[in-house]
Amino acid sequence: MELIRVATVESPLIDRASAPKQGDEGAPEATLVFEEGFVPALDGLAAGDDVLVLTWLDRASRDVLRVYPRDDVSRGEHGVFATRSPDRPNPIGLHRVTVLGIDGPRMRVSGIEALDGTPVVDVKPLLRAADER
Amino acid sequence: MELIRVATVESPLIDRASAPKQGDEGAPEATLVFEEGFVPALDGLAAGDDVLVLTWLDRASRDVLRVYPRDDVSRGEHGVFATRSPDRPNPIGLHRVTVLGIDGPRMRVSGIEALDGTPVVDVKPLLRAADER
Repeated sequence: MELIRVATVESPLIDRASAPKQGDEGAPEATLVFEEGFVPALDGLAAGDDVLVLTWLDRASRDVLRVYPRDDVSRGEHGVFATRSPDRPNPIGLHRVTVLGIDGPRMRVSGIEALDGTPVVDVKPLLRAADER
Repeated sequence: MELIRVATVESPLIDRASAPKQGDEGAPEATLVFEEGFVPALDGLAAGDDVLVLTWLDRASRDVLRVYPRDDVSRGEHGVFATRSPDRPNPIGLHRVTVLGIDGPRMRVSGIEALDGTPVVDVKPLLRAADER
């Protein structure tokens, strides 16, 4: 189960301390720069599309099983599967963004809480019926 | 970027031909059987919670970049990042389900289109604000 990098995040976010917890909390626009070989897989996507970007949170800790939720410590310690903490056994980030434009291998996207240099491992169209109901 | 198995899907679905394309198209209930070491990471989840289950679609093809969408061939060939095809460079499945019950390492979930034996790599709570807006 070895993931391959299909693209890389270019973002002004350079460290975890300055990154917002969720993409709707003031994260900046960013560019996903795709590896040349994967550009054909983008065909059919266009500006305005809502997509899910899956990243590999390479600066997360993988041996954490329980955390104090950052938004409400009073809730007490929780298992990581009950939180969106980046620290988890498989640190896959899931980011809902809007495509702002595509120019060859470069896809501009709306606010995304991933750090500069983060590997992108997948892009999926949002299925309103299945993902939002 | 090596994924580890945190759980395994137990499902009556045994082959791709019989599996529905999305979880809301008649997929059966299933059980996620967690590895013993990851049971503490479930703490805080309970019946009724809506979660996202991430799987590794181990019977998918990873060298497919373009497909004909199964639901509408008339749309023509698309890049896999514009579809939810299981065939893609990193075949991560994303399944929105409701937790029906948890008993030790066994989590019963509502309809999920993953085949029996599929590795589970992550579980995340659904963030209504971020995932549904």
